[in-house]
Amino acid sequence: MLQLLKKASEKVGLPPGSPVHVGEIKADEVKITLIDYDQTNYEERVIENIEESFPFKETSTVTWINIDGLHNIDIIEKIGGHFGLHSLVQEDIVHTGQRPKFENLDEHVFVILNMFHYREEKDDVDAEQVSIILGSTFVISFQEEEGDTFDFVRDRIRNNRGRIRRMGADYLAYVLIDSIVDNYFAILEKYGEKIEALEEELTTDPSIETLNTIHRLKKEIMLLRRSVWPLREVIGALQREESSLIGDSIMVFVRDLYDHTIQVIDSIDTLQEILSGLQDLYLSSVSNKMNEVMKVLTIFAAIFIPLTFMAGIYGMNFEFMPELKLRWAYPALWVAMITVALGLLIFFKRRRWL
Amino acid sequence: MLQLLKKASEKVGLPPGSPVHVGEIKADEVKITLIDYDQTNYEERVIENIEESFPFKETSTVTWINIDGLHNIDIIEKIGGHFGLHSLVQEDIVHTGQRPKFENLDEHVFVILNMFHYREEKDDVDAEQVSIILGSTFVISFQEEEGDTFDFVRDRIRNNRGRIRRMGADYLAYVLIDSIVDNYFAILEKYGEKIEALEEELTTDPSIETLNTIHRLKKEIMLLRRSVWPLREVIGALQREESSLIGDSIMVFVRDLYDHTIQVIDSIDTLQEILSGLQDLYLSSVSNKMNEVMKVLTIFAAIFIPLTFMAGIYGMNFEFMPELKLRWAYPALWVAMITVALGLLIFFKRRRWL
Amino acid sequence: MLQLLKKASEKVGLPPGSPVHVGEIKADEVKITLIDYDQTNYEERVIENIEESFPFKETSTVTWINIDGLHNIDIIEKIGGHFGLHSLVQEDIVHTGQRPKFENLDEHVFVILNMFHYREEKDDVDAEQVSIILGSTFVISFQEEEGDTFDFVRDRIRNNRGRIRRMGADYLAYVLIDSIVDNYFAILEKYGEKIEALEEELTTDPSIETLNTIHRLKKEIMLLRRSVWPLREVIGALQREESSLIGDSIMVFVRDLYDHTIQVIDSIDTLQEILSGLQDLYLSSVSNKMNEVMKVLTIFAAIFIPLTFMAGIYGMNFEFMPELKLRWAYPALWVAMITVALGLLIFFKRRRWL
Amino acid sequence: MLQLLKKASEKVGLPPGSPVHVGEIKADEVKITLIDYDQTNYEERVIENIEESFPFKETSTVTWINIDGLHNIDIIEKIGGHFGLHSLVQEDIVHTGQRPKFENLDEHVFVILNMFHYREEKDDVDAEQVSIILGSTFVISFQEEEGDTFDFVRDRIRNNRGRIRRMGADYLAYVLIDSIVDNYFAILEKYGEKIEALEEELTTDPSIETLNTIHRLKKEIMLLRRSVWPLREVIGALQREESSLIGDSIMVFVRDLYDHTIQVIDSIDTLQEILSGLQDLYLSSVSNKMNEVMKVLTIFAAIFIPLTFMAGIYGMNFEFMPELKLRWAYPALWVAMITVALGLLIFFKRRRWL
Amino acid sequence: MLQLLKKASEKVGLPPGSPVHVGEIKADEVKITLIDYDQTNYEERVIENIEESFPFKETSTVTWINIDGLHNIDIIEKIGGHFGLHSLVQEDIVHTGQRPKFENLDEHVFVILNMFHYREEKDDVDAEQVSIILGSTFVISFQEEEGDTFDFVRDRIRNNRGRIRRMGADYLAYVLIDSIVDNYFAILEKYGEKIEALEEELTTDPSIETLNTIHRLKKEIMLLRRSVWPLREVIGALQREESSLIGDSIMVFVRDLYDHTIQVIDSIDTLQEILSGLQDLYLSSVSNKMNEVMKVLTIFAAIFIPLTFMAGIYGMNFEFMPELKLRWAYPALWVAMITVALGLLIFFKRRRWL
Repeated sequence: MLQLLKKASEKVGLPPGSPVHVGEIKADEVKITLIDYDQTNYEERVIENIEESFPFKETSTVTWINIDGLHNIDIIEKIGGHFGLHSLVQEDIVHTGQRPKFENLDEHVFVILNMFHYREEKDDVDAEQVSIILGSTFVISFQEEEGDTFDFVRDRIRNNRGRIRRMGADYLAYVLIDSIVDNYFAILEKYGEKIEALEEELTTDPSIETLNTIHRLKKEIMLLRRSVWPLREVIGALQREESSLIGDSIMVFVRDLYDHTIQVIDSIDTLQEILSGLQDLYLSSVSNKMNEVMKVLTIFAAIFIPLTFMAGIYGMNFEFMPELKLRWAYPALWVAMITVALGLLIFFKRRRWL
Repeated sequence: MLQLLKKASEKVGLPPGSPVHVGEIKADEVKITLIDYDQTNYEERVIENIEESFPFKETSTVTWINIDGLHNIDIIEKIGGHFGLHSLVQEDIVHTGQRPKFENLDEHVFVILNMFHYREEKDDVDAEQVSIILGSTFVISFQEEEGDTFDFVRDRIRNNRGRIRRMGADYLAYVLIDSIVDNYFAILEKYGEKIEALEEELTTDPSIETLNTIHRLKKEIMLLRRSVWPLREVIGALQREESSLIGDSIMVFVRDLYDHTIQVIDSIDTLQEILSGLQDLYLSSVSNKMNEVMKVLTIFAAIFIPLTFMAGIYGMNFEFMPELKLRWAYPALWVAMITVALGLLIFFKRRRWL
Repeated sequence: MLQLLKKASEKVGLPPGSPVHVGEIKADEVKITLIDYDQTNYEERVIENIEESFPFKETSTVTWINIDGLHNIDIIEKIGGHFGLHSLVQEDIVHTGQRPKFENLDEHVFVILNMFHYREEKDDVDAEQVSIILGSTFVISFQEEEGDTFDFVRDRIRNNRGRIRRMGADYLAYVLIDSIVDNYFAILEKYGEKIEALEEELTTDPSIETLNTIHRLKKEIMLLRRSVWPLREVIGALQREESSLIGDSIMVFVRDLYDHTIQVIDSIDTLQEILSGLQDLYLSSVSNKMNEVMKVLTIFAAIFIPLTFMAGIYGMNFEFMPELKLRWAYPALWVAMITVALGLLIFFKRRRWL
Repeated sequence: MLQLLKKASEKVGLPPGSPVHVGEIKADEVKITLIDYDQTNYEERVIENIEESFPFKETSTVTWINIDGLHNIDIIEKIGGHFGLHSLVQEDIVHTGQRPKFENLDEHVFVILNMFHYREEKDDVDAEQVSIILGSTFVISFQEEEGDTFDFVRDRIRNNRGRIRRMGADYLAYVLIDSIVDNYFAILEKYGEKIEALEEELTTDPSIETLNTIHRLKKEIMLLRRSVWPLREVIGALQREESSLIGDSIMVFVRDLYDHTIQVIDSIDTLQEILSGLQDLYLSSVSNKMNEVMKVLTIFAAIFIPLTFMAGIYGMNFEFMPELKLRWAYPALWVAMITVALGLLIFFKRRRWL
Repeated sequence: MLQLLKKASEKVGLPPGSPVHVGEIKADEVKITLIDYDQTNYEERVIENIEESFPFKETSTVTWINIDGLHNIDIIEKIGGHFGLHSLVQEDIVHTGQRPKFENLDEHVFVILNMFHYREEKDDVDAEQVSIILGSTFVISFQEEEGDTFDFVRDRIRNNRGRIRRMGADYLAYVLIDSIVDNYFAILEKYGEKIEALEEELTTDPSIETLNTIHRLKKEIMLLRRSVWPLREVIGALQREESSLIGDSIMVFVRDLYDHTIQVIDSIDTLQEILSGLQDLYLSSVSNKMNEVMKVLTIFAAIFIPLTFMAGIYGMNFEFMPELKLRWAYPALWVAMITVALGLLIFFKRRRWL
């Protein structure tokens, strides 16, 4: 489940800019992958020692260093030292649960955003913080654990598909962000399906369980919205900010990315409104059902209570009840009772209760 | 029905700018129509081969190429190649379910918007994505299927009515957009009629069906709103943006179009508020009815339950019940019972329950 | 009643700028009134033929041409031709149901707004579209039918009261708009009175009818709000826009007019909030009443059902029921029954149900 | 009570800028007080004739003319004539019920705002319109009736306390406005106390009366908000506007005043939200109570109705009912009945209804 | 508890800028602590007499004067006099209950914000107003009582940890504010835990107590929001404002602080929405329960009332009731009664009430 609040209390009291890992440790070991390419060459390897990546900072080829696992502060600090990351940036990378943000530091651009994974087995959505550092010829990406939406990107680099091998580090950073945003649509589709199932359930057989599901989905989508919404500003800032690191040829892609972000937020809003509508509908249908129940009760009670009273009268044991002696009294009472019952039925019919 | 979310998942992992058709394939075959005109000449024909249209790019006459059917990526790519459309534009054209958007690329202006059709037979509204490319002397429009709101425009070109034959490609693009926006009013009128019928139904014979209809209309109008709302920005951008492709003489028309868009959004908001009002009214009337039912039940129960008890007393078989022997006991009991009943009736009358 | 949506469908397909009358035809014949004045002279007459007014365009005196009735397109087109109105302006004039708007065309200023009339006999509010054209020395006003809020203005011109005869055409236009806005306050007072009556009714004798009235007033005020709200922008634009047609000496009046408009909108918002409050109150009072009803039912049922059961026991015909033979059984049962009844009464008293 | 809408209809049709008194006449006679001071001298007197104050316009000392009572149009016009007030300003002064406003006319600054009085005897809040004219060396204040929040100011002038005697007319105007805004806090405290009492009542003994009080307070605070809210703009304008009449040394005070205004609005919003919360709570508690009532009813009915039926069976008079002859039938029936009753009690216990 | 409104009435009528203590006196005695440091030296002491701190104003070392307890106006005025604080600033310091604010006075920067303490023993959150004055080489902080979130800061100064001893007074001020904002997260975590407990309670055993808790938390979080929300502007202003007192090297920290503030507000909003969701869920579950209760009642009543009536019929004492004589009448009646009961059970089953 998307989490409400990360436990930040363990960090209280530390000087600003102290990189302390906050959040669940999802990966056992830190895995560092290095991909280095230009139009003609391509190299990919898992490295044991972060220092192996340092020489690539200076090369003119595009270098992508991906770190899975954030709990080893040492590695973060070494990278920070070599690539010149401000201590506050280092802090943000390891302190998961950040709002998406964009920071234009002069030597690099720093972006935080959330990647979502739909876990089939738990029927649940997981969030993971991804931090991306864009330098002049390198991109460093930090993830909480292995498994990401970047496989298609790796594939395209390996097989030199699309324009990626012809473009610089800025395009690589864009493509990574784009693949994360693209994945939001898949998550939304999942929610869309769930909501449609819910809508179906609501018209056929609503139960308190249905309401609980509506409530749970509302909360999940609300948390989703909170972690996607700031992306608007982030990508808007990417568009406006004049950084020498982001080439003009990238701008048309960033604009496209912005449109996608808006569309994601739009779709989330739509889902929220539909869920609110379903909740209203559920409550109305409960009201309606209660009404039905009450009508049935009232009709039964209003018809049989007077009749029972009439029968009760002639069940009394008074010695002097002249009616009891009459031959036609019993059938006459039946006639009276049937008349009363019919009269009430007509009354209820007129009121459209039947 | 307006659709909630297009299946975008099939596109996940493709490089940005890959034109892949997303959405239902509505047309069997792609139909390309070419209209070419200036003040004196006019030519209209259906072409088999998209290449036939290419020479018209250079002519000084106004050329309108309309493509119905988006699933043939090949055609889109050929047009894109010849007319110089950015790969992201090509992607947007075939990836239906886009938000309305306006893009001022230097060599052409790109507009996406939604066209609505009311289908009498299904009593339903269909949405179709229309993309319009405006070049210096040509307009290219892409639709998902045949059948549009452009017939009146074709008519005016053919018969040289209005100012259309005297104006340039920018006016043609404006007229196409205007005809789409104009059609929104017709759709809104349909909804207006439905809502009025609903209002009528609500005061005469409301049922759970009424509520479901309210709910369905609310959702439809909400989806309508979502796909019209961004038009405000689109046409606002058209107004502000300084593109050499859009002449000054067009500006007064664009301003008028902007007013119409605002009015459409205004009307949608009004319909939404009225529907919300109807929903409230429905719920209140359910509450009220329940109240009525409860009153009837209470009156019957409160009057006859005590009377039945009184009759029950004298139905007991105790050997020593002096009242049973008295001659006047039975009529006296009747008097007592009628007194109780009348007393309760007066009590209920006083409380305005009768 | 204020209308929801004007039938615009008959206009679909016409070229932009075609003046086609949309809306109910309220006047039988078109009536044209011409008032011409300066500080010393004054002339007023009803003219048969619109051409009679044309020479006044050039004179230095202030000329006010008022047209009641919009269905005669011919007249509109003739005026448009002579006074140089853009075809879109002509379209807007006859296409009633426009949003209030302000357009600064170079040769004249064009303003559309709604005039309201309270019809005593129908206890209803009518809306009428008024279009005002301000030229350098003339004002042309278009109304749907005779009868307006301008009588006081005519009076002041005739009798040379106030500063009107000393001022130019811009002041005349301002005064006309001001008289329309002033009249809104009278309409709001009417609604204020109705709402106060409703408030009274709600505390004394609320019924489902009260709720329907609340609902109807909410809808009417909502439609009122929609047709007044854009006025804010209209008059704001009038203030900001630098048109040579609007003199500086007018500006202080326009600012005052703006304040009035804000106050109108403020009052409408207040009325809406009060109505929402009343609706809440109504629903709460229904809930409360239901609660009362239920309590009465429960008290009666809970007391008499056990007693009836007790009586039922001794109404059984078993041969071996020792209690039936006991002399004191019957009075003992009475004691028991009274004890039970009192116990329950105390129980309900404690729960504050009595 | 704060009034909803002032009767403005009597003013309809008058030329703009006609000073006509609108609103209740609260004072019998107009009382004019003149205070004139500089650092060393001080004079205070009630004047009969407004002309007596005219010479003070030119003196270099600070002059404060306070007028209580607005119904004597003659006096207003005389002041207006001598001190050069625009006719629209005169109109605003006497037309009570204005929104707070700020107007920077070149020769003076014009401010309207509302002063509130809490009337202990009526447990109610009264609003009064106060207009303040700031000239270079004079301040003119207009009030509807005697009695104001300015006594402390007069005191400080008389006794030369604080910096007031050392400062100019602009500081005097500021101090007057500040004393009005300060008084808002006192009014809010009153409402705060009422709401706390209400909160207490709601948890101990809620009744329909509680709801009516909530509703009334909501309406009053809503009207309060409407008449305080525009103050934000007024004082914001005072801050921004560059008037030679307002010295730089005043600016830090105006900024402080702005902060206070924001705080007032903030507090009003808080009160509104708390009231809305209380209303929700009331409605929930009504629902809950209804639930309780229903449970009691259901438990009684569900237990005793089956038992009564069982007793009814053996109250029948069939000749051949073998059970009636059996010795142990009566005690057996008791056992059966007790078993049924216990079973139902357990059932209800399990459902947590007991 | 967070307080709604501070009693400001005692201050009414005083000249603006009179430092009068408003609020509860939380500290018995005023405690003044002085910390003076530079990169090499460090001194910390509690001083009895405020004058002891005056010489430090001029030294080039960073001096932090912390005052706990605001009720001794004398001390405030002495500090104000020596350090040149405007009388309005002095007023704000002692008048607790201010909105957070930022003021750039030329010689110093003045910041007010709220510090929260979670009191374990009362399970409650306390608010305390903290005012911070930043001069060129000194920081003065005012608190209502001892006990704050600054202990970590003191520790870092004492032990020369982090960069604090190397930085100026501006960094000290930033660190103080940062420690206050950091502490908000801890408070929010507390609320987060409470809300999760509530959520748990709601699904297992909801009671009216649950609703009251929801209501109380909503109010507390609303008050929290009101006192944190203005911080956005405060820190935004700190970022924008160009004060020579705030060095450029601090800016990256301030930006980080701004992000934290946004995140705090975001989290508060999330908590609010979740609480609203819980309230809705509670109300729905009440509705649902009522429905269940009603169904049980209706089923019992609808089955046994007709049966009781049937038994009542044959409990009548008419002399001529042929059925009573029949041998098979009693078993036949049983069959009839069982048939009726089964029929009704099937009926209810079909309606899904069972």
